[in-house]
Amino acid sequence: LQSRLPKVGTTIFTVMSTLASEKSAVNLGQGFPDFDCDPALVDAVSGAMKNGFNQYPPMPGVPALRQAIAAKIEKIYGHSYDPATEITVTAGATQGLLTAIMCAVHPGDEVIVIEPAYDSYVPSIELAGGKPVLVQMTLGADGYQVPWDRIAAAVSPRTRMIMINSPHNPTGSVLKPADIAALKDIVRGTEILILSDEVYEHMVFDGARHESVCRDPELAARAFVVSSFGKTYHVTGWKIGYVAAPAMLSAEFRKVHQYNIFTVNTPVQHGIAQYMQDPAPYLELPAFYQRKRDLFRDGLKHTRFKLLPADGTYFLCVDYSAISSLSEADFAIWLTSEIGVAAIPVSAFYQSPRESGIVRFCFAKQEQTLQQALQRLAKI
Amino acid sequence: LQSRLPKVGTTIFTVMSTLASEKSAVNLGQGFPDFDCDPALVDAVSGAMKNGFNQYPPMPGVPALRQAIAAKIEKIYGHSYDPATEITVTAGATQGLLTAIMCAVHPGDEVIVIEPAYDSYVPSIELAGGKPVLVQMTLGADGYQVPWDRIAAAVSPRTRMIMINSPHNPTGSVLKPADIAALKDIVRGTEILILSDEVYEHMVFDGARHESVCRDPELAARAFVVSSFGKTYHVTGWKIGYVAAPAMLSAEFRKVHQYNIFTVNTPVQHGIAQYMQDPAPYLELPAFYQRKRDLFRDGLKHTRFKLLPADGTYFLCVDYSAISSLSEADFAIWLTSEIGVAAIPVSAFYQSPRESGIVRFCFAKQEQTLQQALQRLAKI
Ligand SMILES: CSCCC(=O)C(=O)O
Ligand SMILES: CSCCC(=O)C(=O)O
Repeated sequence: LQSRLPKVGTTIFTVMSTLASEKSAVNLGQGFPDFDCDPALVDAVSGAMKNGFNQYPPMPGVPALRQAIAAKIEKIYGHSYDPATEITVTAGATQGLLTAIMCAVHPGDEVIVIEPAYDSYVPSIELAGGKPVLVQMTLGADGYQVPWDRIAAAVSPRTRMIMINSPHNPTGSVLKPADIAALKDIVRGTEILILSDEVYEHMVFDGARHESVCRDPELAARAFVVSSFGKTYHVTGWKIGYVAAPAMLSAEFRKVHQYNIFTVNTPVQHGIAQYMQDPAPYLELPAFYQRKRDLFRDGLKHTRFKLLPADGTYFLCVDYSAISSLSEADFAIWLTSEIGVAAIPVSAFYQSPRESGIVRFCFAKQEQTLQQALQRLAKI
Repeated sequence: LQSRLPKVGTTIFTVMSTLASEKSAVNLGQGFPDFDCDPALVDAVSGAMKNGFNQYPPMPGVPALRQAIAAKIEKIYGHSYDPATEITVTAGATQGLLTAIMCAVHPGDEVIVIEPAYDSYVPSIELAGGKPVLVQMTLGADGYQVPWDRIAAAVSPRTRMIMINSPHNPTGSVLKPADIAALKDIVRGTEILILSDEVYEHMVFDGARHESVCRDPELAARAFVVSSFGKTYHVTGWKIGYVAAPAMLSAEFRKVHQYNIFTVNTPVQHGIAQYMQDPAPYLELPAFYQRKRDLFRDGLKHTRFKLLPADGTYFLCVDYSAISSLSEADFAIWLTSEIGVAAIPVSAFYQSPRESGIVRFCFAKQEQTLQQALQRLAKI
């Protein structure tokens, strides 16, 4: 059997989680909370199952959930999507990303991907028959930045889509109004679509606001906006998210969605619809995660790690070049095996070998977990 | 935006379910039970959530569930799959089908599809860039049969895969040992893969056994076998199933799976793993559904519908040509609107217009639902 994805191996997240558990390391590698969700959310889903919501929901999602999503987006970003035609519930953000790419990218079309990039982007484009065009972020005193001039230069008549991700995994950087303005300048007058991975939308720190592309009508009109309840509600294993896009794009999205998974777990949809009635859980999220970031960052200040800005997400990247000259992958393995703290090499988010001496820690952990990791890291 | 799936509209299942609810018709259209699952299954999933199984499971599925699946297959069909490398939990059968096609079918490859065919098959092949090669079942005194000579004639050097489906949706026919032997003759000595949709594996009636392709080592070695817990446990809205395939095929399957949805709802996986420890629920399923089939079939004997054999699945097809000369779609709409019983036109399972005067009823319903439908149908 000739492989459709010959370059794909086990994901770095699985590799590092497996190594972490073999070595009893504190797992700050794969991005998931080590604490549980709100019991009220569990009760809401259990209640939906008990109430018999166990058969097929409508293909694009349970209406109450789509309404709650549209209401949330309107409230926070001021953009109104029609829940009937513009919101589709997905089995997590990854499925939303692949489906958006499959529905819009034809064989030979180019998709601009900004590296470092989440590991699913490039294979998803390849499965659609598209051609990823890679542009690397620059790394300066302000941390990672998107070089919009290089993105503009990468645009060709075959460019079908630009993928963006803010708050950004793995770097923890966030797009600012100037970035959004630069993106607008690039796409204005073209037919280029935007695929905006905003799964960390509720984790932006220091009082900054999340610059969702849907805040801007010009961008919203050409964008698929992807989000994840797994991240927002601390249930990464529930596999539920959504894609918001104008009706014309959503119609194409749904054609692929219906033949990919058709629809998403009914009781989980009902449970989340009910739970979303209270905005507090997501409104409190920035402060909740900022405390964790601060605790972890402050604890690292006395080490020889150089800390990069962490303006959003649940990740903090550190430069370890004062400590070791190992490759990022080897350093992450050493850190896991010898120091007992798992991290993810940022090199894993590039298609071509690239060594910057940087690893990513996930601080979406209980205080005691972060303390334990800090104690171990202090020994370096 | 140029469509990747220009021919796709709203599925017939959604169309008929919507019409059924508008017209307060008894919905024997879309295939889903109108009764609830075992409360013990709900408790098992609720318990898993309460016990904190809410973060990412391993990509191919929770180990206990993969073991339970392998044990079930071994017990029933005598084939042993390695749960570590040969079983992958999917977000329902549809996602398993698309993923198997995406991982194996390269642009230009041909896939043989037997019509009538479930509506996701052809779009899934098209998304992979493959070419569906359609062969129609024959309809004779014994009901629908697969014409293996025509399948053999449809094989070309570009044939990458043959899709089969037994028990068969929509016809309710099941493959017999002679069918399996014919299929073996066709693929022997070739590199053709089998994609076997066996979502109704536990619904074979009249004491017959389900001829899973995995019973035969020669076929198992080249087959993706797809099943659905939604069908087996009366939870079509939970979106969970699995794909069993030899390690080499499963490795390719998982490469696509991990970038399609990465993994499946954790607590549902734990709940089903626990519930599967007792084989009674699926062992009792043939008798359970046979009673419903018999009740519904017996009730129709006094009508002018001509009943087709219903050897498996939860569907019964009827020939209405003694009643009406409407097209199948129009007859289904008339039946829903005027008689108050929704059905699915079998023509919806063909790519080219094809009128056989046959509609499909779903008898996966409570006795009282079936009785009510029978009363209405008796008036015709
Ligand atoms: C799907 S496993 C990866 C989790 C994650 O988002 C990350 O660690 O970057
Ligand atoms: C996914 S909706 C279709 C349900 C079904 O399997 C059928 O009715 O054939």
